Amino acid sequence: MFQRRLETLDRELLERIQLDRLRKSIQRIKEKNKKYWEKIGKPEPGDIKSLDDLKNFPFLTKDDLRKNYPFGLACGEQCEFVRFHMSSGTTGTPVVNPYTPNDVEQWGEIMARCLASAGLTYKDVLQITPSFGLFNGGFGFHYGAEKIGCFVVPIGPGRTLLQLKFLKDFKTTAIAGIASYPLRLIEIAKEEGFDFKETNLRVGIFGAETWSEEMRRFIEREMGIETFDIIGMTETGGVGLGIDCKAHNGIHVWEDHYIVEIVDPETGRVLPDGEEGELVVTTLTREGLPLIRYRTRDITKVLSRERCDCGRTHVRLERIKGRTDDMLKVKGVCFYPRQIEEIIMKHPEILPNYQIIVGKIEGKDVVEVVIESDKQDEFLRERIEEEIYSLLGLHIKVTLKKRGEIPRSEGKAVRVKKFS
Amino acid sequence: MFQRRLETLDRELLERIQLDRLRKSIQRIKEKNKKYWEKIGKPEPGDIKSLDDLKNFPFLTKDDLRKNYPFGLACGEQCEFVRFHMSSGTTGTPVVNPYTPNDVEQWGEIMARCLASAGLTYKDVLQITPSFGLFNGGFGFHYGAEKIGCFVVPIGPGRTLLQLKFLKDFKTTAIAGIASYPLRLIEIAKEEGFDFKETNLRVGIFGAETWSEEMRRFIEREMGIETFDIIGMTETGGVGLGIDCKAHNGIHVWEDHYIVEIVDPETGRVLPDGEEGELVVTTLTREGLPLIRYRTRDITKVLSRERCDCGRTHVRLERIKGRTDDMLKVKGVCFYPRQIEEIIMKHPEILPNYQIIVGKIEGKDVVEVVIESDKQDEFLRERIEEEIYSLLGLHIKVTLKKRGEIPRSEGKAVRVKKFS
Repeated sequence: MFQRRLETLDRELLERIQLDRLRKSIQRIKEKNKKYWEKIGKPEPGDIKSLDDLKNFPFLTKDDLRKNYPFGLACGEQCEFVRFHMSSGTTGTPVVNPYTPNDVEQWGEIMARCLASAGLTYKDVLQITPSFGLFNGGFGFHYGAEKIGCFVVPIGPGRTLLQLKFLKDFKTTAIAGIASYPLRLIEIAKEEGFDFKETNLRVGIFGAETWSEEMRRFIEREMGIETFDIIGMTETGGVGLGIDCKAHNGIHVWEDHYIVEIVDPETGRVLPDGEEGELVVTTLTREGLPLIRYRTRDITKVLSRERCDCGRTHVRLERIKGRTDDMLKVKGVCFYPRQIEEIIMKHPEILPNYQIIVGKIEGKDVVEVVIESDKQDEFLRERIEEEIYSLLGLHIKVTLKKRGEIPRSEGKAVRVKKFS
Repeated sequence: MFQRRLETLDRELLERIQLDRLRKSIQRIKEKNKKYWEKIGKPEPGDIKSLDDLKNFPFLTKDDLRKNYPFGLACGEQCEFVRFHMSSGTTGTPVVNPYTPNDVEQWGEIMARCLASAGLTYKDVLQITPSFGLFNGGFGFHYGAEKIGCFVVPIGPGRTLLQLKFLKDFKTTAIAGIASYPLRLIEIAKEEGFDFKETNLRVGIFGAETWSEEMRRFIEREMGIETFDIIGMTETGGVGLGIDCKAHNGIHVWEDHYIVEIVDPETGRVLPDGEEGELVVTTLTREGLPLIRYRTRDITKVLSRERCDCGRTHVRLERIKGRTDDMLKVKGVCFYPRQIEEIIMKHPEILPNYQIIVGKIEGKDVVEVVIESDKQDEFLRERIEEEIYSLLGLHIKVTLKKRGEIPRSEGKAVRVKKFS
């Protein structure tokens, strides 16, 4: 562990720290940004008697952050900040998160905990494949790696042939990336006759996209590695909000820095542990952009608040199942792309690239699942249709294509294509 | 100044520090890499009685570094290093420079001095446009900015429209980039009706390419900024080897970290101050890859070792004129692309993009200069031919193209195209 004492705190003490830090966060908002303070109902820090009072605060949404581009909800003057990271903004105005020096420090700390959770030490060689720049991925791993002192291969995204060469040249032991990137590495490695077994690669840390258990097993098998699912987003201060540990029984969220709630996405009601709903995050130590009850749109549930086999006491969430806004509704049936992925990935003869195409034709819902295989086997195609039907009770057309016919992306994979 | 005491040391003390550090550097090579130590003649640190003894060491060349990819000349085990940066390798095997934690610290320190030389403080907003990753540019500015505590816009290369938007959104006061990138900014700004005067931009820090005085004046005029010429390369530990100060009378090289010599590129003989030759760099504080007499191929001369108007005592070099390997030889006449650039840039009606095409047809040297202008003026074209002839005594064909006909590059500009 990177910080054994903090990562194994008793729950009672952890919650006392949370309450104290929540009050400080409210105090900061009150002092630094009157508009933000008014938006959350002008609370006095002393008003908060227990963590339970948090549920009385209004939610903060992605739209709130977008409408306040760039610094409308920032707490502090620009000269108090040292950098910012930004969401890609492909679906609208981007979200900007400004960092104070303490925020950079906090980020490095939680990322170092994540890397240590995945078993990394100063002896490791970490190949960082997310982009460095406005996207938070590259710099998140950078700051964490600086704290644990491992050797960094700062290659960034793409250049897959060079990535494979570097795995050997620099004896890489761990690779970080967005969750669909290992598929690209595996694909190119096959084409090039590159054998992952001949490398020192042992660990993969992937995130920024939803990836199913089946996908995970595929990556682990093909690359001969143990994988770790890391979560976090621009709004929460970047990658590093949480990660699973070697026990792999849930994603630990660093509760001395964040409070998580699970709410009903329809009513906003807080759900009890074990029930699935939308993840809501409150930051406790972020200065530039403290969040009070931010609706992440990620669907998960609390698995446990008990001590984990790894010794950590911080809450464990189920791996993210999908996002409220990538839930698909076809002929009244709701499902997540990940559910389709799980079916597809059970068939080793189907390649791990797929697309779900949804839209309306003459007012009627239309949906199609496109898969790739080296075998153009009609029986296989029909079997997938049947399996989808037995899971969802929905007839979905499955189209079988040849290897390489579904476009690859160097960034996040495009799994769902919508038309109307 | 970032480190007033160190940047204004008396020469005698500066040279005593150099001698002491040179011995330590030799000691490190002896302890950490026997092959490297043998290559430089197995010197004992105590053998070096004065800085003058340096001239007895053999040169280190780019080929030496390439042949030792990745860690053949590295001093230390890979687990002592925390990262590396790498030359682009477009012209052969790349050069890898590994960094110890102290090297990262050293880099941050010299880059912070460079940023302070350009007048930056924690109040500034620095837009970093070089790439973050294997290329050293982005991370160099990143580490320097962290030390001075200014606000960083970590945008990286390209996305010129977004660059212009950010200049306004984040009230950018200083921009860092490779020397041809401001041309692209100016071009797109014109197309978009973007006025640099409406921004807070005050300073431009450019390097990684040779840029003439005329080009500099063009950029300063068009963008309404003061520019600073920063030097450094992968081999020396990245950008930050030196920069000019507000007095703009030469590039200060940080002599407590580096020794510079100017040598005759043909004979290797050390040249007296004031004579033009090839820059040779010896590092004094780099641990991962200490350099002893590295031939940079850059052409320059020592302008002064006296105290500068800015108060700094560190040696001043003339701005880099070109590189030994980009010197062109046509019909027995030698010249640098920068000399052509100076002629072109004197004519405001010629756009700042140009190309020099050189090669052989049937064994005979052929050279052509391609320029762009909105005016297709035959008189202008002939005038450039005449001016080149009066400078070089060489008839060179000049071709006039329309705006946009010469390809733009998001990376280093392609000024010389060779064929054979």
